[in-house]
Amino acid sequence: MPEKSPLAPEKFPDLPAIKGLEMAAGVCNVRYVNKTDVLFASFAPGTTAAGVFTKSKTAAAPIDWCRKCLEGGEARGLVVNSGNANAFTGRAGVEAVEAMASTAAGLLGCASEDIFIAQTGVIGEPVAVDKITENLPGLQAQFAQDWESAADAIMTTDTFPKGAAAVTEINGTEITITGIAKGSGMIAPDMATMLAFIFTDAKLPADVLQPILADVTNKSFNAITVDSDTSTSDTLILFATGQAGNGEITSVDDPELEAFKMALGLVCVDLAHQIVRDGEGATKFVEIQLTGAEDDAAAKTIGLSIANSPLVKTAIAGEDANWGRIVAAVGKSGEAADRDKLRITIGGIDVARDGGVVPGYDEAPVAEHMKGQNILIEVDVGVGQGRATVWTCDLTHGYISINADYRS
Amino acid sequence: MPEKSPLAPEKFPDLPAIKGLEMAAGVCNVRYVNKTDVLFASFAPGTTAAGVFTKSKTAAAPIDWCRKCLEGGEARGLVVNSGNANAFTGRAGVEAVEAMASTAAGLLGCASEDIFIAQTGVIGEPVAVDKITENLPGLQAQFAQDWESAADAIMTTDTFPKGAAAVTEINGTEITITGIAKGSGMIAPDMATMLAFIFTDAKLPADVLQPILADVTNKSFNAITVDSDTSTSDTLILFATGQAGNGEITSVDDPELEAFKMALGLVCVDLAHQIVRDGEGATKFVEIQLTGAEDDAAAKTIGLSIANSPLVKTAIAGEDANWGRIVAAVGKSGEAADRDKLRITIGGIDVARDGGVVPGYDEAPVAEHMKGQNILIEVDVGVGQGRATVWTCDLTHGYISINADYRS
Repeated sequence: MPEKSPLAPEKFPDLPAIKGLEMAAGVCNVRYVNKTDVLFASFAPGTTAAGVFTKSKTAAAPIDWCRKCLEGGEARGLVVNSGNANAFTGRAGVEAVEAMASTAAGLLGCASEDIFIAQTGVIGEPVAVDKITENLPGLQAQFAQDWESAADAIMTTDTFPKGAAAVTEINGTEITITGIAKGSGMIAPDMATMLAFIFTDAKLPADVLQPILADVTNKSFNAITVDSDTSTSDTLILFATGQAGNGEITSVDDPELEAFKMALGLVCVDLAHQIVRDGEGATKFVEIQLTGAEDDAAAKTIGLSIANSPLVKTAIAGEDANWGRIVAAVGKSGEAADRDKLRITIGGIDVARDGGVVPGYDEAPVAEHMKGQNILIEVDVGVGQGRATVWTCDLTHGYISINADYRS
Repeated sequence: MPEKSPLAPEKFPDLPAIKGLEMAAGVCNVRYVNKTDVLFASFAPGTTAAGVFTKSKTAAAPIDWCRKCLEGGEARGLVVNSGNANAFTGRAGVEAVEAMASTAAGLLGCASEDIFIAQTGVIGEPVAVDKITENLPGLQAQFAQDWESAADAIMTTDTFPKGAAAVTEINGTEITITGIAKGSGMIAPDMATMLAFIFTDAKLPADVLQPILADVTNKSFNAITVDSDTSTSDTLILFATGQAGNGEITSVDDPELEAFKMALGLVCVDLAHQIVRDGEGATKFVEIQLTGAEDDAAAKTIGLSIANSPLVKTAIAGEDANWGRIVAAVGKSGEAADRDKLRITIGGIDVARDGGVVPGYDEAPVAEHMKGQNILIEVDVGVGQGRATVWTCDLTHGYISINADYRS
């Protein structure tokens, strides 16, 4: 396995417990050997769920399954394995998912359709489903709430486990939100080769959870890119156990939800940033603030065009303030931009404006910024009020080494 | 400069002369030192032209100029420099183009608007235009037809000069087509950081040339990708000197043009392949044949989704027949595909069909194919009759080395 990302946090955060959730993770040798690779979680009766999934036309079997589970409205369990994505595995893949759900449902005393399934890892190889199902009783016997081992269980090429939490309130009742995520390569909007599971003790109906999650995703997990690749397995599920006992909420527009929405957004952005910081081979974390576009959607398109440009990303890896490549990436996005009003700032320092480099441009302070781990690029394209922020990492030899050798 | 691409041809081809064309290339030290960097060409009176240019919204000054030249209908000269793209250089950039055209026009005795200009290299730096203009008289004194030095003059990060030719006929008259091109990084459809100049002695009006060139481009220069980046300067111009003396053609649909269209297509595909073979860091030439899509446009979108996937390209670099990443790239393209009918062939060997790996799949012969320099991937997405072929190269450490260090 590659070394820990230089952008990794020093240690896994202390994360608060969620009432109504029990879980355990273990080493089941599904494909990896001697790595925590299966997570089994149980939710209190009455738990609701919302989900956002890959838009891939070749989505994996668990994606189809989870979409069906969401229709049922209730969530009682979750089984996740790493090592094998159970994607493009035909009828056998569907049966593997059904076996996992059925076994878990038997143990938890609920319907199969209340068990959510997520799988990540190699595509196109049959999954050793017995290694998962036969270990679920043992995991159930160890149910507790160890967030770090849960985050470990879902990792593939990740070099560090990812978790984040926030405490907020609804109707004056304290609400906790805790989430874990995985992802490092094949990361792009319309989601990434990422899994994220977020748990809250809030009591919220599924039809309120879903639009909140979709909106928050747009500005977090769908605003990051590592390599512009989208996977067959991308999954984000929010489970709400309802154990906090907050007053009833029936509308997504209820002003009592404002703080919750913001807190959920913070957790999602934090997890999304951790995924970028673990981008395969990443040595720099890059924030791109795009303003002046026709509308917010155009701003995001241009921002992602910059964030996905291999030439921009290799320049950042080389610590080269090569703003010419940023100009080219703006141009190729297809969105309106006024070449003669374009303004580019790197590390807060004006680099280009009005269609050319700034008069008396001194590259020294910009070059100094490029040597840091956190790179800030601001671009105003001069045609409107649209704005968006996206995040990416640099493109390095490490990315090539990881992906030319590892079969994922 | 990086070493010559392992995919380069052994030597520059012998290319036939074009009547009505004179040219010379020389070392003018525009930005590079001691490299042939300026090409000056003169066309016989009555030469027509057609052009296809970058769709970038931040196109460079020479692009605007050439679009204007095409409206005039006649071409009398061409000046190209490498080293500086004169892009994002504001008013000074426009003036530089005007100075180049005006100087050349004075020497050739024509209007400025009959002189086409192309520039390639670094973006955002003022171009040392005097170094170009003051050398044009000296180049004119050496006018001849040395194709290799012409191809050398337009190179930037290219590791070998690119040329191709074909002989055909119109109305029974022999017609010659000879072209040169440059490009190796920032290569993607809607053209590439590429320049290509194609010359023919055919006598064809501009309004016949233009639709032929646009159609041919679609299946050649717009069907290749190295790194998905599109530049500010991409230019393809076809000049027809009219010296062959073929009978008059007034319609693009004239059946007498069929052989010419095919020959022009061969020259363009040949040059496009050479650009891919010189892809920055490339060690493998990859052809992707996409069939079974809803229509040809959808097939091309899916083909390019595969060709642009960093995960597919790094797997090819690693000689890994990782067809799971091909499935993922099909899925993310956004075009219709039937997961359960998907068929993938690598090197002519069936790998996957009907939503899974083929029964009894033996990876050995596929792994052997992956070790070669020419990789063939065939994908049928099982929903219709649309088809397209696209070409790309692998993504290697060489790409990172070139682009993290070189400012282009």
